[in-house]
Amino acid sequence: MLIEATFMLFPLVIALIYHEQDWKLFGMVIIATAIVGGLLFLLKPSKKQLYAKDGFIIVAIAWIVMSLIGAIPYVMSGLIPNYLNAVFEAVSGFTTSGVTIVADVEIASHAILFWRSLTHWIGGMGVLVFMLALTPIAGGASMHILRAEAPGPTTEKLSPKISQTAKYLYLIYFVLTILEVIALVIAKLDVFHSFLISFGTLATGGFSFLNSSLAEFTMAQQGVVSVFMILAGMNFSLFFMAVTGKLKKAITDKELITYLSVLAAVIAALAINVFATTDQFETFGQALHHSIFAGASALTSTGFAAYDYNLWPWFSKGLLILVMFIGGCAGSTAGGIKVSRFIIMIKAVKRHLKERLHPRSVNIVRFNDKEVENDVVGGILIYFSIFILIYVVSMIIVSLEPKMDFTTTFSYVSTTLNNNGIDVSTVSMGGFANFNWASKIVFIVDMLLGRLEIFPIVLFFTWLFSPVTNLYKKMSHKVA
Amino acid sequence: MLIEATFMLFPLVIALIYHEQDWKLFGMVIIATAIVGGLLFLLKPSKKQLYAKDGFIIVAIAWIVMSLIGAIPYVMSGLIPNYLNAVFEAVSGFTTSGVTIVADVEIASHAILFWRSLTHWIGGMGVLVFMLALTPIAGGASMHILRAEAPGPTTEKLSPKISQTAKYLYLIYFVLTILEVIALVIAKLDVFHSFLISFGTLATGGFSFLNSSLAEFTMAQQGVVSVFMILAGMNFSLFFMAVTGKLKKAITDKELITYLSVLAAVIAALAINVFATTDQFETFGQALHHSIFAGASALTSTGFAAYDYNLWPWFSKGLLILVMFIGGCAGSTAGGIKVSRFIIMIKAVKRHLKERLHPRSVNIVRFNDKEVENDVVGGILIYFSIFILIYVVSMIIVSLEPKMDFTTTFSYVSTTLNNNGIDVSTVSMGGFANFNWASKIVFIVDMLLGRLEIFPIVLFFTWLFSPVTNLYKKMSHKVA
Repeated sequence: MLIEATFMLFPLVIALIYHEQDWKLFGMVIIATAIVGGLLFLLKPSKKQLYAKDGFIIVAIAWIVMSLIGAIPYVMSGLIPNYLNAVFEAVSGFTTSGVTIVADVEIASHAILFWRSLTHWIGGMGVLVFMLALTPIAGGASMHILRAEAPGPTTEKLSPKISQTAKYLYLIYFVLTILEVIALVIAKLDVFHSFLISFGTLATGGFSFLNSSLAEFTMAQQGVVSVFMILAGMNFSLFFMAVTGKLKKAITDKELITYLSVLAAVIAALAINVFATTDQFETFGQALHHSIFAGASALTSTGFAAYDYNLWPWFSKGLLILVMFIGGCAGSTAGGIKVSRFIIMIKAVKRHLKERLHPRSVNIVRFNDKEVENDVVGGILIYFSIFILIYVVSMIIVSLEPKMDFTTTFSYVSTTLNNNGIDVSTVSMGGFANFNWASKIVFIVDMLLGRLEIFPIVLFFTWLFSPVTNLYKKMSHKVA
Repeated sequence: MLIEATFMLFPLVIALIYHEQDWKLFGMVIIATAIVGGLLFLLKPSKKQLYAKDGFIIVAIAWIVMSLIGAIPYVMSGLIPNYLNAVFEAVSGFTTSGVTIVADVEIASHAILFWRSLTHWIGGMGVLVFMLALTPIAGGASMHILRAEAPGPTTEKLSPKISQTAKYLYLIYFVLTILEVIALVIAKLDVFHSFLISFGTLATGGFSFLNSSLAEFTMAQQGVVSVFMILAGMNFSLFFMAVTGKLKKAITDKELITYLSVLAAVIAALAINVFATTDQFETFGQALHHSIFAGASALTSTGFAAYDYNLWPWFSKGLLILVMFIGGCAGSTAGGIKVSRFIIMIKAVKRHLKERLHPRSVNIVRFNDKEVENDVVGGILIYFSIFILIYVVSMIIVSLEPKMDFTTTFSYVSTTLNNNGIDVSTVSMGGFANFNWASKIVFIVDMLLGRLEIFPIVLFFTWLFSPVTNLYKKMSHKVA
């Protein structure tokens, strides 16, 4: 809460610069948040030793509280009067989904727009470290990074090395953001809006300040965003390697190569399909430009749009929906299931086929020339299974909406659970605002599930409902 | 081939009974098939010892040859002049999918209709034993059952006990079919058509002799079919247990209870949704009747329709599409992923969550009070992953069709890969005939993949392309 209050100083300053009244509301929220946060800070925890379960639940609670507070400025400014809608927007921001519930975002003040894009940046940065912690590939000490990400008096427990790494990663994130701002300013976008778009790009968020996303941008500006979207989908520790003299190791990373190959294949498929079957682009170059943007936006889960993709043929639209599931690299700010999980999954499938044929043979799954332990392989298969199951359950609930068809349901659940933000649907419903409250809650939970990679949120709900389930267990025990 | 030629004697007799000219074409196909089969029979295999890989590939080849021959009567009778379409129909028959490529099935002769429904029955019976072999839950000696199913001189290798069990299963299959025929005749359907529908029901196939599937049947007839669809989705070895005095063990089977619970939940959801949001049914009883039929047809992958489900709201349509993936019980003739796989998958997810919280704890996945080995759990997770991956790849290829929308693609791939047959789509394309050849091949491969539970077909293609991949490996080795 204290960290969030600190971040809210930025939109307050923006409001003052642009002589907007919104500085007052940010001031009030900051003071209230700081007071409550400060009081909570004084509470001494009864339990000093933290277990894995506590870590997960702390992260989940932190994200929920952060979103509930982050939504207040939207309500107070009058942009989103309905609090549930405002929470949707805040969660979409922090989880870097970038699906917006605001029909007309162009009426928003500078301060609100800045806060909206800043939530992306906070979520991307925070989640980056958190993801490193949760992805088993990253190896040991994950508990510590996890604790660092969760707010609370646990920072001093960090070992120096991990915190150093985290600092470098933050630095890379910051430098890339500034580089994109400079590139966009060179491409003749003003400084303020360059910051908004850069926050959205590096966090793979996708909030724009225009209702048409980036469709009205020049090709140069769109090109800059394309490049930085692709960079944002890479594992940030590779940049660290590249800078610290391990360039060769960085560019031979299996996940990076796969990520770029998949991206190239998707772009080629989109460009050929769109150019060959429609008259929307005069030259193949234009089709390629928009395919690069769309492919990068979908794969990295950024969700910016430089074109109305609903005009594209179904093959391209379907490809954009399905590619969301792949997502970027582990250790990036991107959403989706992640490239490395797919690599290991496919290797596990191959191994299984081999073992079916030669039952007594022993085969090892390797990734980047290192053995992947069976526990990790199993965990990834479980992750994929639970991801698909959550997807299906979400679809069933959302399809209770009377006016929704299957495609809209499918793509909207996909865009939220994968933290993507691209809107491909047959029924243009005027955005997410027209869904009923149950669907909105599903979308909010799905965005959190996607961003925190399922387990913290699942464990949080298990913990939340544990009094009920314990009671049920006791009762059924008595009956038995 | 000899077995298939023997089965073709039935439609030949039917043609003679109804004084149709089709007896000639069946006679020609039988003679040709028998001659080629007989000649192959004379070939002595150079390799006496069969390995796992050989077993899988033999099964795959057997099914492909069976389908290629089974398609010939459709072409020769003039019902399906295009051979690829005829192969589609034959594969749909043998795999018990039951999606038809014939626009007007009512013009077909008795002999052809009988052959068409008989392919269901052959595929269901053959696959039953085969599935028992492939599903690891069934336990040891799977290789033997697999060999029994694959045509060729390997039957004498069967141990007496396994062949005895297989015989009992065939007997149950036969008795249930006759029982349904009797029930349908009592419900005033003529004997010939009762056989057709019973073949389609017990095999969970779904071919009808009317263009409107079973929509014009009386409620009593539909009710009979509902009951036998539900029975056909159960593990056939439970009937064996029930008959041999282990009734209590049979009815407390975890998979059976889950299957019936899922079915009840789906039926309740459909009935409430359809009755509450549409005016299609005057009484709740009617809505329930049609929900029972639709739920059973979708879950057991039979694919009969007693109503135009495209008139139902999207929640119901979506539920029908998604429920296809669950399928019936292991050891039944049903398609889909199977209930027991889902049970073990969900248990594995729970165990993973527990182990995340308590890393040093040891947890065992249990099913029907027996420990499920980690290999089996891993195999099921792999199966689910590869199933979803095949699904996605199929969708991408099929969505290259210019006129197809996402829902149609999704539901058509679902209905083939799950061997289901229910047609839920937004674009009524006049059935599968209007797809291009590439999509048809995808559907054909998907039906075979679904029915043979993926591995035989994957290994067949690996084997088929092994000269190419070996050449590629050699060449890339030289370059390196």
